[in-house]
Amino acid sequence: MAHNNKPKRKSQNSIMLGIDLGGTKILAAVVDSQGHILGSAKRKTRSERGVKQTIERVARTGLEAISDAGLDLSQIKAVGIGAPGVADYDAGVIEFAPNLVDWVNVPLGPELQNVFHVPVVVANDVDAGTYGEATVGVAQGYNSVVGIFPGTGIGGGIILEGRLWRGERNAAAELGHMVILVDGPMCGCGRRGCIEAVASRTAIERDIVGEIRGGRSSMVSGLIDIETDRITSGILAKLLTEGDDVVRDVVGRAAYHLGVFTGSIVNALDPACIVYGGGLIEACGEYMLPIIRRNTYRHLIRPVDPADLPILEAQLGDHAVLLGAAMLAVDSLSS
Amino acid sequence: MAHNNKPKRKSQNSIMLGIDLGGTKILAAVVDSQGHILGSAKRKTRSERGVKQTIERVARTGLEAISDAGLDLSQIKAVGIGAPGVADYDAGVIEFAPNLVDWVNVPLGPELQNVFHVPVVVANDVDAGTYGEATVGVAQGYNSVVGIFPGTGIGGGIILEGRLWRGERNAAAELGHMVILVDGPMCGCGRRGCIEAVASRTAIERDIVGEIRGGRSSMVSGLIDIETDRITSGILAKLLTEGDDVVRDVVGRAAYHLGVFTGSIVNALDPACIVYGGGLIEACGEYMLPIIRRNTYRHLIRPVDPADLPILEAQLGDHAVLLGAAMLAVDSLSS
Repeated sequence: MAHNNKPKRKSQNSIMLGIDLGGTKILAAVVDSQGHILGSAKRKTRSERGVKQTIERVARTGLEAISDAGLDLSQIKAVGIGAPGVADYDAGVIEFAPNLVDWVNVPLGPELQNVFHVPVVVANDVDAGTYGEATVGVAQGYNSVVGIFPGTGIGGGIILEGRLWRGERNAAAELGHMVILVDGPMCGCGRRGCIEAVASRTAIERDIVGEIRGGRSSMVSGLIDIETDRITSGILAKLLTEGDDVVRDVVGRAAYHLGVFTGSIVNALDPACIVYGGGLIEACGEYMLPIIRRNTYRHLIRPVDPADLPILEAQLGDHAVLLGAAMLAVDSLSS
Repeated sequence: MAHNNKPKRKSQNSIMLGIDLGGTKILAAVVDSQGHILGSAKRKTRSERGVKQTIERVARTGLEAISDAGLDLSQIKAVGIGAPGVADYDAGVIEFAPNLVDWVNVPLGPELQNVFHVPVVVANDVDAGTYGEATVGVAQGYNSVVGIFPGTGIGGGIILEGRLWRGERNAAAELGHMVILVDGPMCGCGRRGCIEAVASRTAIERDIVGEIRGGRSSMVSGLIDIETDRITSGILAKLLTEGDDVVRDVVGRAAYHLGVFTGSIVNALDPACIVYGGGLIEACGEYMLPIIRRNTYRHLIRPVDPADLPILEAQLGDHAVLLGAAMLAVDSLSS
C-alpha cells in the first residue's frame, strides 16, 4: 500500500555531496542518486574554535571527499548538510545548535554555497537521517515513515507522502519531548515525563544507578565510575548478554515505554512503517526491539497485521545523516 | 505564515449536500462553497432498525434538506457525509461504526450515489468536523490544523498542508488513544493511560464520583444519580460557575492533562493552529481553555509566541461535521 508516491529522483545519475555536521565530528561523502558512496572524508568538528573556523572545516572536509572520489568540484550538482539543531530550510540557516559552540542564526547554507557554487540544502540531522532511511535505507519504498532514534536523547523524524514533515516553523518531529508519563521523571528540557526522560540512554543510566544505590547488585558497578554515572550503550549491551538482572529490568522498562509511545504515534499518524535507530538501538536492539514491537501493536486502537506496519531497524548507521542530506539535495534540484 | 497553500475551492459556487450521520441523529444541510447553509433537515437515526433502513433515513433526510432549500436534486453537485466510524475514503465504505448497530463494511457511498446520482464522499465524523473548522470555521486560512474534541470520548483530526491526513489505512488522528500516563487509568479501549481515560467527560465523571465516595462533599451529589454516575457537561459547567471545589479540581486536572497532551502534539507536528471543540469544551471551555493554553505553551520544546500558534475554540458546533463533509465533497470535484 502507498509505496509509490515519492518525489521522483532525477533519472540521470546526479552526483551530490552529503555532509553530517556533528557535535564531535564532520563526515562528508560524495553520493550518487541511488545512495552509493563514491568517496568520503572526516575530521573533528572542534566547534570551540569558532563558527567561521567550523564552517571552514566543513568545507575542507567536503572538498576532501570530492577529491577522495576522484572527482572535481564542477561535477557536484548540489550539497546537502545535516546539523544538530533547528534548521530553517528555506533560508539555509541553523537557528540554534546546542552542541555547537555559539551557533545561533548561522547562515550555513549561503556560506557553503560560496564555496561549492551549487544549491545547498540545510537540514536538521535527525530529519536527514530519517529521510536517508526512507529513501536509500531500510524504509525505502514506504510512503510515510516515522523515525525514532533513542541515544543520549531521543530524536525523531516524520516523513509523510514521501516528504519530510518539517512543520510550520521547522519545529516538527521533536518526538523525544512528547510526554508519555505526566509529572514523571525530570527531562533535560526542564519538563517532566517526556519519553526522553523515561527511555533514553541517559534515563536508563539514571535508573540503573538508582537501583544500585537502592541496594541491588549489578555487574554495572564494576564497569562504571558510580560517581560520574556514565554507562555507555556498549556496556548495556554487554550486560544484557551476560544476563544482568538490573540492566535487563531497566532497559526492558525503557523498551516497554518506547512501545507504548510508538503505539501512540501510530494511533496519531498511521504511517506505513516505523524505523528505530540511534546508539541505544544499535547496541541493544536485539533485546529492546521485540519488547518495543509487542507493546506497540498491543496499543493500536485499530489492530493491524504487524507485517503491514513493520517496525524496522535502521541500517545506514553513521551514514544515515549524510545520505539523507544528499537525497534532500537531489530532490531540491527537481522541485 | 503558511496560510495560502490550501486546495482551491471551485470558483463557481457549487451547491453541496452535507450530512452528519450520528449515533442518535441525522443532520443534513444544503451548503454552498463558502459554507452557507441554504436549507436543512434532521431526524433520529434509529440504527437498531437495520442498516438498510438507516441508509434510507439518511437519504430521506438529505432529500428533505434539498427541498427545504427550495432546490431540486439536479442542482446538487456532490454529497459529503461524516459517520462515527472507520471510513475507507476511496471505496466510500464504513468499515466499522461502534455506535451504529451492525455497521460493518457498509458501502454507504455507493448506496447514496444510487439515490443522489452525484459523487459521494464518505468521511470519519471527527475528520469532517476538523475539516469544517479549517475551511469555513474558526481555523479558516490556517494551513495545518490539529482538532481535539473532548466529550464522552476524545476525538481528533489532523489537517496538513490544507488536506486531511487520513494515514495509510484511514486510521490516523485517533488522538484520544495517545498515551499520556503510562499504566494510568483504564480506558474504554481496554488499555491504560490514554488521554481519553484521563480527560474525557467520562473520566471526569469517574474522578468526581471517586472524590465523593472518598468523602469530599460536592454539589454534584444533589444533581446526579450517584448509582448511574451520569454527569453531563451542562452540570459540570453549572457547578464550575457556582464554585464547586471538587468539580473545579477534577475538571482543572483534566484541562492540565489536555494542555500537556497538546504540547506533545505540537512538539510532534508543529501545526499552524489547534482547534478545541466537543461537548466538554462547549460547556466548560471558559474554565478549561485558559488552563489548556497555559500548559500547552509551557510544554513546547521550541517556544513560540502564543499569537503565532493559537489554540482556538471551535465555532461551528452541531454543523461542523456536515459542513466539513460538504467541503470535502467540494474538493473531490476539483481533484
